Amino acid sequence: MTSAASPLLTDLYQLNMLQAYFEHGIAETAVFEFFVRKLPKRRNFLVAAGLEQVLEFLEGVAFSESDIAWLRRTRRFGDAFLDHLVALRFEGDVHAVAEGTVVFPNEPILRVTAPLPIAQLVETRIINLLHFQTLIASKAARVVLAAQGRRLVDFGLRRAHGAEAGLLAARASYLAGFDGTATVEAARLWGVPLYGTMAHAFVQAFDDEAAAFEAFARARPEGLVLLIDTYDTVAAAGKVVELAPRLARDGIRIAGVRLDSGDLASLAREVRAVLDAGGLDETTIFASGGLDEDEVAALVDAGAPIDGFGVGTSLTTSEDAPALDCAYKLQEYAGLARRKRSTGKATWPGRKQVWRRHGADGRMASDILGLESERRPEPVLLQPVMAAGLRVGSSPSLADVRAHAAQQLALLPEPMRGLDPAPPYLVEVSEPLKALAAEVDRRLAHLETTDAG
Amino acid sequence: MTSAASPLLTDLYQLNMLQAYFEHGIAETAVFEFFVRKLPKRRNFLVAAGLEQVLEFLEGVAFSESDIAWLRRTRRFGDAFLDHLVALRFEGDVHAVAEGTVVFPNEPILRVTAPLPIAQLVETRIINLLHFQTLIASKAARVVLAAQGRRLVDFGLRRAHGAEAGLLAARASYLAGFDGTATVEAARLWGVPLYGTMAHAFVQAFDDEAAAFEAFARARPEGLVLLIDTYDTVAAAGKVVELAPRLARDGIRIAGVRLDSGDLASLAREVRAVLDAGGLDETTIFASGGLDEDEVAALVDAGAPIDGFGVGTSLTTSEDAPALDCAYKLQEYAGLARRKRSTGKATWPGRKQVWRRHGADGRMASDILGLESERRPEPVLLQPVMAAGLRVGSSPSLADVRAHAAQQLALLPEPMRGLDPAPPYLVEVSEPLKALAAEVDRRLAHLETTDAG
Repeated sequence: MTSAASPLLTDLYQLNMLQAYFEHGIAETAVFEFFVRKLPKRRNFLVAAGLEQVLEFLEGVAFSESDIAWLRRTRRFGDAFLDHLVALRFEGDVHAVAEGTVVFPNEPILRVTAPLPIAQLVETRIINLLHFQTLIASKAARVVLAAQGRRLVDFGLRRAHGAEAGLLAARASYLAGFDGTATVEAARLWGVPLYGTMAHAFVQAFDDEAAAFEAFARARPEGLVLLIDTYDTVAAAGKVVELAPRLARDGIRIAGVRLDSGDLASLAREVRAVLDAGGLDETTIFASGGLDEDEVAALVDAGAPIDGFGVGTSLTTSEDAPALDCAYKLQEYAGLARRKRSTGKATWPGRKQVWRRHGADGRMASDILGLESERRPEPVLLQPVMAAGLRVGSSPSLADVRAHAAQQLALLPEPMRGLDPAPPYLVEVSEPLKALAAEVDRRLAHLETTDAG
Repeated sequence: MTSAASPLLTDLYQLNMLQAYFEHGIAETAVFEFFVRKLPKRRNFLVAAGLEQVLEFLEGVAFSESDIAWLRRTRRFGDAFLDHLVALRFEGDVHAVAEGTVVFPNEPILRVTAPLPIAQLVETRIINLLHFQTLIASKAARVVLAAQGRRLVDFGLRRAHGAEAGLLAARASYLAGFDGTATVEAARLWGVPLYGTMAHAFVQAFDDEAAAFEAFARARPEGLVLLIDTYDTVAAAGKVVELAPRLARDGIRIAGVRLDSGDLASLAREVRAVLDAGGLDETTIFASGGLDEDEVAALVDAGAPIDGFGVGTSLTTSEDAPALDCAYKLQEYAGLARRKRSTGKATWPGRKQVWRRHGADGRMASDILGLESERRPEPVLLQPVMAAGLRVGSSPSLADVRAHAAQQLALLPEPMRGLDPAPPYLVEVSEPLKALAAEVDRRLAHLETTDAG
């Protein structure tokens, strides 16, 4: 669903440029690459994500009759141009880094090779899809590393930025190592495992907390978790202990309790003691309430007896860094390498590839950013995923992507697995790429002189 | 489009609770209120937004056959419960603050009065819609105040969090005072005015900047703006001057130029001088490139000759504060006021209303947060907008909402119009509300004692 957007989900300037390309017959092959310019302050690496939705979008992109009719009514575009849009499809090539792969600044995550107009038209949505899922997968990976194996569930739909953000965040966090989500629709769309407990309103509707627990339990939700912080958390744990044998007689097992407020470390210890003393040593403690990776790490480091965490807003908005400085840039047109030279925004030209070196311990050691035409012994990150508008092979399942991401996180150099800034990972620029950049600069030199007056 | 989501766009716990409510026949009237608990560090006020999408959602919310079939396949729910979901609709009442109204922490922005199960089910999407648009309208209002009348265009679709975020951000920023958006689909959905220029890739595809300008211009896009920072910005302004008379002979007028990088204040001055010397004193200068309200304010204060700004990522992600601490809380059930008492998260119980006092100068002076049943002379903020599931009257047009927001910003106390933190606006809690809170506390006192052990 999330990729079936109309091509009108784009910036107006794309359509203005398409009209100019059309009128001047400009349609040679363009090569665009999507990459992140630099890491947010508290990120040591990125986890590439969103490719599957990009491919679905490219497979389906087409102007419907009603799209064209609406564009005509705006009176911004010529009839011949609009007639030509009817048949416009994406029939280009795409190379990309597999979802779940660790990547670094300036490394292309996706490359589009297609006639300039269509490659331009799809820019906005490609960035929109890749940016967001990469953002969230990269944030989620930090929480995963901090949680050291404890269960993690995405609770963030309500404060995600709209419906699609909530859904894609459930997908991106799952592929980065979360165990599942509370978002029902994400389970339907992608099979992300579902977790859910109960809300304070349920407890409040009763005026008697124990009665609320029992009523909820007797509806037999799968994986029964009782929310025990509406009033006095430790007292509520006692009510859970009292209730458990009565429920057990009817075959109902209390899987866990949830704490959503207060001093989670000390409450978890008190609650654990109450549960254990009451014979509920298999009942788990789940914590939530405005948590981020730092709080998860602190609770884990403090040895708080918490078995799992619900992480919401901080995850689905990537709250400490809600955007990546990323771009989709023209690197080659009509066979000639291109390079943007605006102050502070220069890019590496040409069709690029990334090679990854591993150390003796098998961990990632450094990358080489070079030209696709170079031959090197190391494994490459960019692979063909679409040729002439059709997928190359079958795309990996979300489970495969998740396994790949887990393997990637395991290969990170140790300092980069921490939450604090680590020394930057080395991404070496190859000599042929530097030579090409210099060549493009010489070619464009005449454009750098000031001839205004 | 953005509101036609399936009710599966919710948290699993809502469905778990609904099943328990169903099995126990719990369906008395519940009153929930949506409010923001506290302001982000750099916000002096909020602008309420998103009500229209909430009402569309509530009008249409229903489980489809395929929703039910999917839920059945999960084996999480009983057949009788699922059969009952088929007929579930929202037939409750809604009171809300008009979109575009300035609001403050703890003031209800929306109140839902409906049978507990349906009022609970819609929680997730109501928060998802109101939170995001209020977040963006509140951020946009800061940019609007900083720009002091200069043109403002939303450029942020590409780094917004998914499609819906990009669309709703275009709507929310427009209603808060932006002049329009680059997002084409937002124009189709809501008539938001469209603005667009050209991209660096267009210029780069030519290798000759002047040829690129001419080709783009001759396609006659409405409101022709040339992007002049791909190579040397001031040199490019000279090319625009050279080109202008040739285009004018064919009836093509260059409306403006855009700067997207470099020192915008000094480049704008140099470019202005070149354009003026070349007789293009009516050609405007538009600036973009990672701008936020602080940079807009700095450029305006420096007297930079910039006529308009494109604001992207910082706006559509509300980058400095990408989430609001907001909640949708049960305030009354079965005729009894309710109050959550969890540590640090206590709420004001009951059905509330907000009255606004204005000073002698007509500006907002202070608000009173009280019970709906109180009678006061000041105007109230919450009005009935839906009764028994049907809209009360017709909803205001987006243009009306935008005019209302402009009037609201004009009524802000002067210190709150600045970008820096101002002394907090006074929201007085009425005596009857305090009395009700105390009464609820007394009623719940038995739940506060520790009986664990």
